[in-house]
Amino acid sequence: MLLAAAAALSFALPAQAEDPAPILSPSEIASAAPASEWVAIAPSDLLVVDLAPDAKGKSRRVVIQLMPAPFSQGWIGNIRKLAAAHWWDGTSINRVQDNYVAQWGDATEKKALPAGLVTVPESAYVQRVLDAEDAQLGKQRLIDSYAVSAGFTDGWPLAQSGGERWPVHCYGAVGVGRNMSPDTGSGAELYAVIGHAPRHLDRNIAVVGRVISGIEYLSSLPRGTGALGFYEDEGERAPILSIRVASALPAADQPHFEYLSTESASFARYADARANRRDPFFIRPAGGADICNIPVPVRAVAK
Amino acid sequence: MLLAAAAALSFALPAQAEDPAPILSPSEIASAAPASEWVAIAPSDLLVVDLAPDAKGKSRRVVIQLMPAPFSQGWIGNIRKLAAAHWWDGTSINRVQDNYVAQWGDATEKKALPAGLVTVPESAYVQRVLDAEDAQLGKQRLIDSYAVSAGFTDGWPLAQSGGERWPVHCYGAVGVGRNMSPDTGSGAELYAVIGHAPRHLDRNIAVVGRVISGIEYLSSLPRGTGALGFYEDEGERAPILSIRVASALPAADQPHFEYLSTESASFARYADARANRRDPFFIRPAGGADICNIPVPVRAVAK
Repeated sequence: MLLAAAAALSFALPAQAEDPAPILSPSEIASAAPASEWVAIAPSDLLVVDLAPDAKGKSRRVVIQLMPAPFSQGWIGNIRKLAAAHWWDGTSINRVQDNYVAQWGDATEKKALPAGLVTVPESAYVQRVLDAEDAQLGKQRLIDSYAVSAGFTDGWPLAQSGGERWPVHCYGAVGVGRNMSPDTGSGAELYAVIGHAPRHLDRNIAVVGRVISGIEYLSSLPRGTGALGFYEDEGERAPILSIRVASALPAADQPHFEYLSTESASFARYADARANRRDPFFIRPAGGADICNIPVPVRAVAK
Repeated sequence: MLLAAAAALSFALPAQAEDPAPILSPSEIASAAPASEWVAIAPSDLLVVDLAPDAKGKSRRVVIQLMPAPFSQGWIGNIRKLAAAHWWDGTSINRVQDNYVAQWGDATEKKALPAGLVTVPESAYVQRVLDAEDAQLGKQRLIDSYAVSAGFTDGWPLAQSGGERWPVHCYGAVGVGRNMSPDTGSGAELYAVIGHAPRHLDRNIAVVGRVISGIEYLSSLPRGTGALGFYEDEGERAPILSIRVASALPAADQPHFEYLSTESASFARYADARANRRDPFFIRPAGGADICNIPVPVRAVAK
């Protein structure tokens, strides 16, 4: 199809024309986007997870962007309270299941929760939308195996069917662990997706954010050998030094990030290029992409 | 939907009936499949990758099932020759890119290849199929973002569009690294997918197999910090002790595996359950699944 495109182009250009501009890869398109298309993420919407240094003494920081309203706000309110109470300090990553999730919280399951956490009802797993809204989500027309419509709004991958809209479990998505009853997840037990998108969890567990930096410190942890990937020996757990909302950190220690507006022209080109790779390595553009194979570009910025 | 299913059941059962059998999870369905539905994988179709032991002295074995005919046989012939020549012994895993691939081969790119390797033409990335075959693949009707049809045949996930059929890049898929020209991949440089299915590689790189055991030894390796996830320091590379076709190993050291026939009744139930989780944790069955979220069950067996 690259050959076909070149052939079509030759009809539109005089034979003496210079070579057309090189076809950019998706990451090159994102890098070339003007500053006006990047959106700053408020430090109050970042959760900073500092793990104990690795065996070589290297620090390990994971940064999570919290999901904006209207999604999952009951759990996110709890998460803000847990961070303000320093509740996670001294807890650990207790479960790493290959091609699935890394999960953290209090391994003893006995640590008292701070006052004021709310119980979130099952209805909060989805957002009800008007029928009139139940059409294409975002600008990209994506074929989705799990919903009538899937697309990007305000920087987030969402899916929609039957009057319900929900955030999807892509790689790096952060969700709320729970027990069998759907209202048992407080937000104290969190996980991040480290494998192929487990979309069957959509609408069954709350997505509260996504890892935007440092996912490799979770995804490269040794896999647990117990049931569901729990570590069998407590010495295997990765200790958590602290978890804070970034705005509670000293200014010099606050990370700053921007995402490429999913409503921008550059994102439209980026998404099209993800679905139709025409940069030089590729010989057959796919002609489509699933929503989790179009990760929203995020970049760290100095402040 | 769980409630709806239970309600429908109540019409078929007298009110005094005992509780219906518990609804099984996908893995429970696979575990309950009769022996007749499991298919032995010939040791001659297994590639055994022995890495150097980890820092704690634990051995690390990765087992790859090679793709059967008609797919990718030119490259697989080369791989058999490379293994027979012990060509990979002393090479290493040189690239680990998060949410993408772990790649191995000769880091120096100077090691001479054994005689008799063939150059495989671009046409081999797909299998031409008759129009009459260009309908549903396998028994499962899956919605796919990358092809008109996707399904399972003889234990493998395949996709099909426009008279072409191809093996897909799911988690664990093993492919042939190449340079810019599509006929430059010999099979000496291989990679395994360790993240969300990079389906844009389908039909652009040859899939030659899949990891069926030990993927965690690849997916949990430290990520490379160089471009494309290549290790910058050669000390970071994971040494490969040997790669052999299993039938070339001493009998006592040969691994044995079976896969659940994708044509079996149990696989149909398993695939349905992956798309519609009704085991107790779930409150909203997805109503669908992408082909890479239905991993074909594989089990180790004693011989």
